[in-house]
Amino acid sequence: APPEPAPGPEPPAGGGEAAEHRALVLTGFGGYEKVKVQARRGGGPRPGELSVRVRACGLNFADLMARQGLYDRLPPPPICPGMECAGTVRAVGDDVRDRQVGDKVMVLARSGLWQEVVNVPASQTFLMPEGMSFEEAAALLVNYITAYMILFDFGNLRPNQSVLIHMAAGGVGTAAIQLCKTVENVTIFGTASASKHDYLKESGVTHPIDYRTMDYAEEVRKISPKGTSGGGLLQLSCLSSKCKETSNYFQFPLGVDIVLDPLGGSDTSKAFNLLKPMGKVITYGVANLLTGQKKNLMAMAKTWWNQFSINALQLLHHNKAVCGYHLGYMDEEHELVGGVVAKLINLYTQGKIKPKIDSVWPFDQVADAMRQMQEKKNVGKVILVPEAPKEETKKEEN
Amino acid sequence: APPEPAPGPEPPAGGGEAAEHRALVLTGFGGYEKVKVQARRGGGPRPGELSVRVRACGLNFADLMARQGLYDRLPPPPICPGMECAGTVRAVGDDVRDRQVGDKVMVLARSGLWQEVVNVPASQTFLMPEGMSFEEAAALLVNYITAYMILFDFGNLRPNQSVLIHMAAGGVGTAAIQLCKTVENVTIFGTASASKHDYLKESGVTHPIDYRTMDYAEEVRKISPKGTSGGGLLQLSCLSSKCKETSNYFQFPLGVDIVLDPLGGSDTSKAFNLLKPMGKVITYGVANLLTGQKKNLMAMAKTWWNQFSINALQLLHHNKAVCGYHLGYMDEEHELVGGVVAKLINLYTQGKIKPKIDSVWPFDQVADAMRQMQEKKNVGKVILVPEAPKEETKKEEN
Repeated sequence: APPEPAPGPEPPAGGGEAAEHRALVLTGFGGYEKVKVQARRGGGPRPGELSVRVRACGLNFADLMARQGLYDRLPPPPICPGMECAGTVRAVGDDVRDRQVGDKVMVLARSGLWQEVVNVPASQTFLMPEGMSFEEAAALLVNYITAYMILFDFGNLRPNQSVLIHMAAGGVGTAAIQLCKTVENVTIFGTASASKHDYLKESGVTHPIDYRTMDYAEEVRKISPKGTSGGGLLQLSCLSSKCKETSNYFQFPLGVDIVLDPLGGSDTSKAFNLLKPMGKVITYGVANLLTGQKKNLMAMAKTWWNQFSINALQLLHHNKAVCGYHLGYMDEEHELVGGVVAKLINLYTQGKIKPKIDSVWPFDQVADAMRQMQEKKNVGKVILVPEAPKEETKKEEN
Repeated sequence: APPEPAPGPEPPAGGGEAAEHRALVLTGFGGYEKVKVQARRGGGPRPGELSVRVRACGLNFADLMARQGLYDRLPPPPICPGMECAGTVRAVGDDVRDRQVGDKVMVLARSGLWQEVVNVPASQTFLMPEGMSFEEAAALLVNYITAYMILFDFGNLRPNQSVLIHMAAGGVGTAAIQLCKTVENVTIFGTASASKHDYLKESGVTHPIDYRTMDYAEEVRKISPKGTSGGGLLQLSCLSSKCKETSNYFQFPLGVDIVLDPLGGSDTSKAFNLLKPMGKVITYGVANLLTGQKKNLMAMAKTWWNQFSINALQLLHHNKAVCGYHLGYMDEEHELVGGVVAKLINLYTQGKIKPKIDSVWPFDQVADAMRQMQEKKNVGKVILVPEAPKEETKKEEN
């Protein structure tokens, strides 16, 4: 595990201006108070890297999981969290040819981005398109890459299909809604508490469902068109007049074509059972583990116990697909991820997607920011901003 | 279970010419000899049905399974097998508006089509396109619908991807190869015994693999491009100079984007392990159960024991999809299946697909036909023909 740098003398400045800067640091597993603002020092960018002055950072479910010790893609604390940010290039390392000082970039990383200044490989940065704010840029990568890949790669969403989006007002949820709207005539079921339903309707959700007051699976079944019986292949009559297979055998509600499942546990099974033939459930998180500020062993046991499990023969008889998605395990997939980002930037510049910002919090209020998300008060993305000292900001903007 | 009709007096002929006709009948579970030619009698078409003079029938793996008692979608014997055939409409029942006597049709059903004459719901028939032979028509539906849906719906095959096709010279295999060739720059790995490799190469397989003499998984890994390491998202340097995550962490062979798995058992796990990130395995059969003429309990136990099984959390960490496909459970999906058939007919008329016929056998030689397939001697589809009495054929053709 990388030890925290002790405050000390200025290290040799590779890229010049190596000064103390503020960073959010996860000091140990536990509640909101475990994330603290600390001073850090660093050198300039190494070869292949950029030094970026961070202007906005995205908060993700995985950050909440990480704080509780439930995210296995990070070294143990103390560690600087943060998987996405946006800012301005302040120094360019050797061997970087496609970026220059002053470029506005968004950054994706396994961790470490919740700082005023970060050094990152240029290959993990993407140029922000014209007209995009830093907040939007910090809200784009994790949520939209996830939503795009689960809907269009695994989900293979096509016109006239139907999708169930859980936590539809959350980061991935709002992204998924917008992406669904780029496909003709998609029916969207979206779960969220009732107070968010107006927003869901405005943004294109066909059927908002209040998962707190009703069984969402029952509700989806109620709304879905019923399976047409009428016989079909079952109705093949033998020439023998004694053979009278009847047809009303298989009347069932059709369900949906795609379920996006960020919940895990028993909700994955519910999702599977809600699928139409050729339907796909894409599980991409275990939000059910997060029941409060701290790790909840009961919730973990329950989620594990109720976990969806299937074998090949069962799957064979269902005409369904089960997919698992985790951007955190996509580290090496530059080409794949870069291709998706290019498509997203294209959709943004066409005005087809636009990150919905719920709220913006300075580093000092990171606890409130995390609470906003954990208590599911947010509609859209929760953003952190470093609030850099005014003088330096001014200097760089000139 | 529909009892076999006892030979008796001619039933009232709804559509006219109700006479005795020849049918293949599965008389009990077991070896090739269990399928016998018998005489049957039947009436004319009921409302919504067509009576079809059958000219060619397709033999499928499921028929071999059914003979051994390994296919659960059929009533117990005695029963007439046959899931697909092609022929000429000889009588039209009430309420059928879109078919007329003389139309050439292909037919899809759960069973019952290996007869000289069948009555089937018009909704299960599809008009044969101009220029298609009865043999081709009898080879199209089961194999091409399967290949199309697993490649393009579950598989979501796109340009520049790679596919592993098992039993590439079989019915679904040859169909899948042709369909892969409709997408730009797809790399095809195809397994078959060495004697079929020339055919595979001619038909577009990039890398034929002899599964009898080598480990196909190892072979695919050897040929696949290696995962580029070079760091990427893993290489994020902390500003702390002590934090030196290195990058050569995750070097691994890339594998393939899609594996079509008709084998089941341990081969599904092999398939899963061969997948790239965002890869998909589609399991659509359990050919590993078929080791000889009769049900093999050891093979069943082994296949069951080695069966692939996964839970949601495991899947989540892999960025992979597991899909199950079984056309036999698609009975009610007229719209879905009909849409696929329309696309297939379109591809056929464009010359992009053309069923490969391995051999044509009269009903009397059904045992030889089944042996041809079971012993994997076939390249393409094995077809059965009733050899209708010449006079009647001539009369109907006028």
